[in-house]
Amino acid sequence: MIKKLAIVGGTHGNEFTGIYLLKKWKNTPELIARSSFETEMLFANHEAHAQNKRYVEHDLNRCFSAADLTNDSLTSVEQRRAKEINQQLGPKGNPRVDFIIDLHTTTSNMGPTLLITKKGKFYNQLAAYVKLHMPDAMVSCDEDHKTNEEHHFLSTIAQDSVMVEVGPVGQSVLRHDVFEQSEQMTGLILDFIELHNRDQVPELPETVEAYRYIESIKLPLTADGERAGMVHKDVQNQDFKLIEPGQPIFVTFDGKEVCYDGEKAVYGSFINEAAYYDNNLAMSLLEKITLSTR
Amino acid sequence: MIKKLAIVGGTHGNEFTGIYLLKKWKNTPELIARSSFETEMLFANHEAHAQNKRYVEHDLNRCFSAADLTNDSLTSVEQRRAKEINQQLGPKGNPRVDFIIDLHTTTSNMGPTLLITKKGKFYNQLAAYVKLHMPDAMVSCDEDHKTNEEHHFLSTIAQDSVMVEVGPVGQSVLRHDVFEQSEQMTGLILDFIELHNRDQVPELPETVEAYRYIESIKLPLTADGERAGMVHKDVQNQDFKLIEPGQPIFVTFDGKEVCYDGEKAVYGSFINEAAYYDNNLAMSLLEKITLSTR
Repeated sequence: MIKKLAIVGGTHGNEFTGIYLLKKWKNTPELIARSSFETEMLFANHEAHAQNKRYVEHDLNRCFSAADLTNDSLTSVEQRRAKEINQQLGPKGNPRVDFIIDLHTTTSNMGPTLLITKKGKFYNQLAAYVKLHMPDAMVSCDEDHKTNEEHHFLSTIAQDSVMVEVGPVGQSVLRHDVFEQSEQMTGLILDFIELHNRDQVPELPETVEAYRYIESIKLPLTADGERAGMVHKDVQNQDFKLIEPGQPIFVTFDGKEVCYDGEKAVYGSFINEAAYYDNNLAMSLLEKITLSTR
Repeated sequence: MIKKLAIVGGTHGNEFTGIYLLKKWKNTPELIARSSFETEMLFANHEAHAQNKRYVEHDLNRCFSAADLTNDSLTSVEQRRAKEINQQLGPKGNPRVDFIIDLHTTTSNMGPTLLITKKGKFYNQLAAYVKLHMPDAMVSCDEDHKTNEEHHFLSTIAQDSVMVEVGPVGQSVLRHDVFEQSEQMTGLILDFIELHNRDQVPELPETVEAYRYIESIKLPLTADGERAGMVHKDVQNQDFKLIEPGQPIFVTFDGKEVCYDGEKAVYGSFINEAAYYDNNLAMSLLEKITLSTR
């Protein structure tokens, strides 16, 4: 039973959509109210937003492992803010809120994507419910071997959580379509939790198509670690489309194509995401999976 | 006769394309060499790029009016850098270089656009030549009543100049297609100048279609000056398409459409450009014009 839920926006300061949705809902709280649980809102990284940056010193959405939250020697802007948020919504391990929805956007052409970091029938049914009412929605799973305690995402303060990840939208940009998709997906998640709480989850399709994270791959680099190329135009915007072995996925600045050297076909996501340039990550690779709602 | 030409990149620190094109051409200078003139390169705003921002304190591309360049009380990072660049390429009024090509990108869906800030047959022929070899190219004119001296663009250090403006590409992102288009358009400009210098400009179409800047319009704001809405999804990405009187162009965060209240149909550009949020500018409005090459 989910009794308390938090919707978080602005975990990344230059992802405007969640921040403006929070502003909207502050004026119209009835839009996110449901009768079986309480909903609160949190603007996670004001300071980064004031500077119009993803983060000031550290990516806030990598600061929430239980070990980091209890490590007093970590004192950057975001490491301190993570501890504050952990006090407010958590503490992790025994949290005040039961569920967190964290609102993100991406510069990649991922459409409206539900990001799931935990396994279980609840999540599979949630995914099926969202996709039933929003057929364009994509479901992306990254339920790796970490325990919730080890996870570094803000949303993992709560025992249960999802991230809403919508694109393409540039950093520091508001797009009407992305705003609407983010709002619609959030509403569907709230609706599903309401139905789940009341034991009224309707008949759902037996299975739902999803994608599971395998690994991230890097941009071509020189021996000195400088960027030597970029994502190939045939892969740009092709999130959740097949990438075949031998297909050009990068092009170097001097015009040479670099092909995918994996052994089997995969799918891409977060393709050419601006924020991942910090680590020279080019995209995530995924496999297609089927989730069962039974 | 154009004897010395400068290609400038990184006037805005988070517009990566020009910066990486300069890196490329540093290794392959033959690509931008032409026999009738010398070409040099300038990386305009290193410091903003190091901070992954458009600018540190002031938009560098607004710092080049003759009055500002000679005003010693203007000492921000960019105001100082403008004076350095003016020493290097100028000084304005009696410049060392005859022509500047300044490379920009936009988050708007403008495609490859040639921005012209001066009238004359040379520019009309240049536009026709570029469009002949690159039919997707758009030509946008903003030859307002300012003299070159009063203009605040970096490129106006030289008596003659153009800007290459390509999108859509998010801030801090490299896109293969945008990179290629920027490179192609720059090459065509160099080719035309070479032909012009040699008095070998070929037969060109008699006229070329272009757009002329009329005015910029602002996002909907609250009485307190806060953003109250965003660009309507039906206008997003519709750069250089017709905007009719009465057509919805904005939507407020509470879902109300705001319609274009002009008296005649216009065209939009820089629609929802991220960098213009600073001033709450939503888009530029343009009229369609015909330039004569005779």
